[in-house]
Amino acid sequence: MAEEKKIPYKIYLEENEMPKQWYNVRADMKNKPAPLLNPGTHQPMTAEELGGVFCEELVQQELDNDNAYIDIPEEIRDFYKMYRPSPLVRAYCLEEKLQTPAKIYYKFEGNNTSGSHKLNSAIAQAYYAKKQGLKGVTTETGAGQWGTALSMACSYFDLDCKVYMVKVSYEQKPFRREVMRVYGASVTPSPSMETEIGKKINAEHPGTTGSLGCAISEAVEVAVKNPGYRYVLGSVLNQVLLHQSVIGLETKAALDKYNIKPDIIIGCAGGGSNLGGLISPFMGEKLRGEADYRIIAVEPASCPSFTRGRYAYDFADTGMVCPLAKMYTLGSDFIPSANHAGGLRYHGMSPVLSQLYDDGLMEAVSVEQTRVFEAAEQFARVEGILPAPESSHAIRAAIDEALKCKETGEEKTIVFGLTGTGYFDMVAYEKYHDGKMDDYIPSDEELAKYAAKLPKID
Amino acid sequence: MAEEKKIPYKIYLEENEMPKQWYNVRADMKNKPAPLLNPGTHQPMTAEELGGVFCEELVQQELDNDNAYIDIPEEIRDFYKMYRPSPLVRAYCLEEKLQTPAKIYYKFEGNNTSGSHKLNSAIAQAYYAKKQGLKGVTTETGAGQWGTALSMACSYFDLDCKVYMVKVSYEQKPFRREVMRVYGASVTPSPSMETEIGKKINAEHPGTTGSLGCAISEAVEVAVKNPGYRYVLGSVLNQVLLHQSVIGLETKAALDKYNIKPDIIIGCAGGGSNLGGLISPFMGEKLRGEADYRIIAVEPASCPSFTRGRYAYDFADTGMVCPLAKMYTLGSDFIPSANHAGGLRYHGMSPVLSQLYDDGLMEAVSVEQTRVFEAAEQFARVEGILPAPESSHAIRAAIDEALKCKETGEEKTIVFGLTGTGYFDMVAYEKYHDGKMDDYIPSDEELAKYAAKLPKID
Repeated sequence: MAEEKKIPYKIYLEENEMPKQWYNVRADMKNKPAPLLNPGTHQPMTAEELGGVFCEELVQQELDNDNAYIDIPEEIRDFYKMYRPSPLVRAYCLEEKLQTPAKIYYKFEGNNTSGSHKLNSAIAQAYYAKKQGLKGVTTETGAGQWGTALSMACSYFDLDCKVYMVKVSYEQKPFRREVMRVYGASVTPSPSMETEIGKKINAEHPGTTGSLGCAISEAVEVAVKNPGYRYVLGSVLNQVLLHQSVIGLETKAALDKYNIKPDIIIGCAGGGSNLGGLISPFMGEKLRGEADYRIIAVEPASCPSFTRGRYAYDFADTGMVCPLAKMYTLGSDFIPSANHAGGLRYHGMSPVLSQLYDDGLMEAVSVEQTRVFEAAEQFARVEGILPAPESSHAIRAAIDEALKCKETGEEKTIVFGLTGTGYFDMVAYEKYHDGKMDDYIPSDEELAKYAAKLPKID
Repeated sequence: MAEEKKIPYKIYLEENEMPKQWYNVRADMKNKPAPLLNPGTHQPMTAEELGGVFCEELVQQELDNDNAYIDIPEEIRDFYKMYRPSPLVRAYCLEEKLQTPAKIYYKFEGNNTSGSHKLNSAIAQAYYAKKQGLKGVTTETGAGQWGTALSMACSYFDLDCKVYMVKVSYEQKPFRREVMRVYGASVTPSPSMETEIGKKINAEHPGTTGSLGCAISEAVEVAVKNPGYRYVLGSVLNQVLLHQSVIGLETKAALDKYNIKPDIIIGCAGGGSNLGGLISPFMGEKLRGEADYRIIAVEPASCPSFTRGRYAYDFADTGMVCPLAKMYTLGSDFIPSANHAGGLRYHGMSPVLSQLYDDGLMEAVSVEQTRVFEAAEQFARVEGILPAPESSHAIRAAIDEALKCKETGEEKTIVFGLTGTGYFDMVAYEKYHDGKMDDYIPSDEELAKYAAKLPKID
């Protein structure tokens, strides 16, 4: 590393260079994402119908396929300034370790207490709830990043926050729960006995440890039944991708500052919030024919929505109270193996990303978790950041691409999203160290069984 | 917060503005810190004697009371670039919450995987060990921040790292241990049966859960007995304060950029590594008569070295294998109450800071842990960072000073050190939330008992 480094290790934007508008990639899509459908009538959900569940202004954002730029309110920009801009890091040490001619950059979203990019949308959703004069919001959380982010956002705007946390996570991750308590949120293990759907699921499956789809149903029920409450969601929705575009806009601004043109952009994909946000402005250029990039979604081999799912309308939740979304899905009953370590466990995928993928504008790969943790540890040792298991999917793919460059001698520029830190995931690292991690992959038969239960929509 | 903010929320230095030299405050001290003494002869330790325990170049730094600036080797500066510069944050939201006319800034050292400022010295010590051609280093760790930092540094330079972790922490903090494993360190609960001193302590105190002083003794024994190994320490020593001066130098550079003159500088104090580093360049100005500042050390009421200890020669460790240091001390047998939550548990204090305190150049206050956690939670909710219990001592004192300004109407500028994050301290937060935290303060009789056992040195 003796050569002079013209690009700093970390590129930080100045405060006045931070985005003042979010970018709505739907405005540049020729094929728009399919609309959400009413689960009863199978007709597109109207703003009025959506307004019973979601905040008004968020409904507008959800349905807006036309406006490319939407102002970020000043209150949200002020909050962003507490933990943003996030650094775009040149992975000099990783490049050296791999002995690759590739140039690797990562956008690091983990330097905040929620430990991930989730805060970018949580603060926006809390702001609009507050603006509407609501008392509070409800949500679900699995691993706990989203719940933590939302509790931080609600605390800031003095809103009540009710989190339904998948029971197995509630019990196995008491520290995440405790962080939410610091921020004054109420955290209930799901399925609970507080909701109709929770009682039903507990009766049908005694001793169940819950699932994300079930926790969503509970949170929606509580929001609908309690005046002054709305439901908020941390991924999948169009509005979430809109808010997360701040990641991509900052990344692009940082790259532009140094005249860097990426060849490959990589992000992990569960519901699509991080990937959708990271790639938005780059995809916009691609859609407008101004530039071309390889864009790669990385998903767990144990929950392979893009690579092995169907592109179809499906339920977003187990209780089937949410609107139907057209997306790459494994079926709303699908739950990844209990041995699956990271997040990225959602059965479906953002409708925006699903459409882009279906249109051939991006690629997808799936990776097995042992190789993911190998990449995580290699990265931690040279770059000094302990990555979240989710983020490590992107690290794995970035390393694989960099190693291809080593073989071919190509000096490609790779940018990936490092969504968060793994401080609350040490049980998974322990499993990895102790050789207790396996690489269960669902069989074709198993996936076909769930796919057969997809709702039939014309 | 409608007024225009000329000072950004976070001040980041550019890479080329980062310090290229550490600052050695001893050079400007009229009364130098007292020398370390040989525990057998009570004569000042020579470089040769120290070289049996510590790396050669670190011994030079330990004994150097003359050179004000010492070059930071390029390899260390490259590593610093991975996680530094750390931000100097303007606490706009905290000021607003407190409704204080005071202007509050904090230097945040928690944005790295060790979770604290400890990495600043760990990487330096690992570098000099590598340069000397050593195989590895040994150390002790209590709460685990230092052990984590050292394991990261050793991994980077491919050095073996043996950590003796206080048994109670080893058992209660399995996740910290697991992070060290990610970086390839071997972690042994102390007292172990691997060392003579460990066997002795286990025999004398069956079932003991260990102490920092005991873990130090074990780590030193292993370093001395194994060719190619040396012992390294994360606090107290002059060399550590030298490395940590990077905190203060960056802080001062960031303040100077915006022509900000602090009135009060606050840091938490256990062994003094953070406080000594933060205040160094400011204390230098004070010693040279160029500026004046109020400098406040904040310590736990349960381990009050400055406020209730004696300024005397004492052992650094339980096994009495380390050199004697003249410092504010509670006695080397003193162990804080088991209910004490944070770090800052060391019985002694940096000899440099002890001398400065004795000369009336700084103040000290002690705070009870319930009030510390109140401040921690208040801070987390408005500033978005979940602070470590150690760091929260400084937050408490900063809030108290800001509230005094509110009463008097003074627009003082307060700078404090936010040393780290509390992600691995959620058990303590849980105790606080559940009302299970008490504020044990040692009695005068108890302290007198330990003080009576201080070694008699002329």
